[in-house]
Amino acid sequence: MAYKQHKANKVEMKEILQLKNYMADPITPISHLEKTQDDMKTQMELLIMRIQSEFCRALEKEEDEEAKFQVDRWTRREGGGGITCVLQDGRVFEKAGVNISVVSGKLPPAAVQQMRTRGKSFDGQELPFFAAGVSAVIHPRNPMVPTIHFNYRYFEVQDKNGVQWWFGGGTDLTPYYLNEEDAVHFHLTLKHACDGHDKSYYARFKKWCDDYFTITHRGERRGVGGIFFDDVDQPNQQSAFDFVTSCAEAVIPSYIPLVQKHKDDPYGYYERQWQLLRRGRYVEFNLIYDRGTKFGLFTPEARYESILMSLPLNAKWEYMHEPKPNTPEHSLMKVLKEPRDWLQIEQARATA
Amino acid sequence: MAYKQHKANKVEMKEILQLKNYMADPITPISHLEKTQDDMKTQMELLIMRIQSEFCRALEKEEDEEAKFQVDRWTRREGGGGITCVLQDGRVFEKAGVNISVVSGKLPPAAVQQMRTRGKSFDGQELPFFAAGVSAVIHPRNPMVPTIHFNYRYFEVQDKNGVQWWFGGGTDLTPYYLNEEDAVHFHLTLKHACDGHDKSYYARFKKWCDDYFTITHRGERRGVGGIFFDDVDQPNQQSAFDFVTSCAEAVIPSYIPLVQKHKDDPYGYYERQWQLLRRGRYVEFNLIYDRGTKFGLFTPEARYESILMSLPLNAKWEYMHEPKPNTPEHSLMKVLKEPRDWLQIEQARATA
Repeated sequence: MAYKQHKANKVEMKEILQLKNYMADPITPISHLEKTQDDMKTQMELLIMRIQSEFCRALEKEEDEEAKFQVDRWTRREGGGGITCVLQDGRVFEKAGVNISVVSGKLPPAAVQQMRTRGKSFDGQELPFFAAGVSAVIHPRNPMVPTIHFNYRYFEVQDKNGVQWWFGGGTDLTPYYLNEEDAVHFHLTLKHACDGHDKSYYARFKKWCDDYFTITHRGERRGVGGIFFDDVDQPNQQSAFDFVTSCAEAVIPSYIPLVQKHKDDPYGYYERQWQLLRRGRYVEFNLIYDRGTKFGLFTPEARYESILMSLPLNAKWEYMHEPKPNTPEHSLMKVLKEPRDWLQIEQARATA
Repeated sequence: MAYKQHKANKVEMKEILQLKNYMADPITPISHLEKTQDDMKTQMELLIMRIQSEFCRALEKEEDEEAKFQVDRWTRREGGGGITCVLQDGRVFEKAGVNISVVSGKLPPAAVQQMRTRGKSFDGQELPFFAAGVSAVIHPRNPMVPTIHFNYRYFEVQDKNGVQWWFGGGTDLTPYYLNEEDAVHFHLTLKHACDGHDKSYYARFKKWCDDYFTITHRGERRGVGGIFFDDVDQPNQQSAFDFVTSCAEAVIPSYIPLVQKHKDDPYGYYERQWQLLRRGRYVEFNLIYDRGTKFGLFTPEARYESILMSLPLNAKWEYMHEPKPNTPEHSLMKVLKEPRDWLQIEQARATA
């Protein structure tokens, strides 16, 4: 908000940056940001820095005084870099990673193609590209608090036809024990963020999320979903950015209330073991299926520590583990095998 | 050995099978095995059943009385099946999986191609294939006892030019703490198994193993290697089978002495945490890079519980963990980053 006011007055970027309690200095030199305040690349870099710091501070507030994010600012030889923030072994959060990256360089067309789900085609040899994004995975200690993941990203690729740009992203929830009220609160918050921009978004992106976060070999979803989208370049750049901004700003209200509600819930050895098994499934999804993880790891000079911060501190694999019928663990599995229409959107449509 | 004697006399297969303490009934009906005693498919099925039972019994001998392998015999709708043996949460072995499978059916040529490292080409549409193999991963509890993995397999594919067959396999060791004497013992046992068949095998297959078991994004090997090979179809079928038999028979003498030597070694919380971190790396290799795991999981109707039995019971990922210089953990990392010529084969060559 503060940023927008200042932008209107074209104030000094240094002043803007001081207003925010960012985790580290921006990756792009301040002098360049200053000269390019209307450029989407600059707007996106400032957005992800703000989202990163707001989310890290919100998480720290739920923690013991001394549990703070470790901040690593890193740069790439080819161009750009990132800020990786990790809080590990806290009382409330077993492992929390919040990462931003702002990178540019040249990519072979095949690699560019891989960046999009449904491809427009690209011409030329190596293509100049720019990518900026924020991504976070929070693994709480208490099994009654769900894991959250979100990622919001902006791409530009230049080919002989000019610059192509698009946004992607999403937020999704992975509970260990199903609390229907929480799932509804989470989905409702995301729906509100979507509805302000396009009434068709939530339903489409909710389904896309269920489809994407599938552990195919097990025939189950990673969690209770949320929203997921890629290739958003409509209706225009500023409106698409505003939509992504709303989604990113919805992360805290969608999640922090769930942390506050459950972080002191009682639990025991059995619940912890179940949480560890489900974290093993999380690892399976991320290492076998997740496009972002694979794209990251197969990129030369990848900072694998930032990519793999999404993995839980602890995980477990038991041979042939199967929850017994009529247990809370079994109820969760039912929802993972058949995603639910949390806000009864489809039902409302059918009866309308 | 007993099998070979009996084969000469063409005795009843039932009698042969009773001589062995197999883990379960063979996948192929006994009546069919009886009629095809000279067929390589039958020879391989009997070999892997024997290796499975000998290895399971040898591991059980190192365990407490009550820790026994759970045996699951499963079948596939399309043809064949397997026997999966898992011992979990023992005093000595945290998770030990020993699996055999004997499967047949039809595969698209692209899938067949994937089964070989360096491809001969295949003609035709869907091709009838046969695959039989034994594979095992043993994760001990004590961090001073290394993890072992081995896999020996036989393939047949029929195209319009006739039947193509080949063997593949290997045995490799993943220590958590480096014991040079153990590594030399392990490699020497494998070298002896190779040398009886082809003096060039050990050096070639040792290098292939170091190359294959690489966690590329980290620039490190999974362990201290061993041997690894694929596409072995020389000098003839029976000799290739005898070579694979020698390798499979070398598993027990290469590994069980290390278990006996270290299973009661003292260790503490710190060593356990390091073991868990290294097990996280094991998971990374298996889920991101291992061809067998991927080929398995992407096969329709895959029995994923058998494929993923290779994953440890527990694993851990700490952000930016780096062993301090001059520690035992650091010594291990040095060997993982630069594989060693354990038997000084290259050195001997250079000075010869």
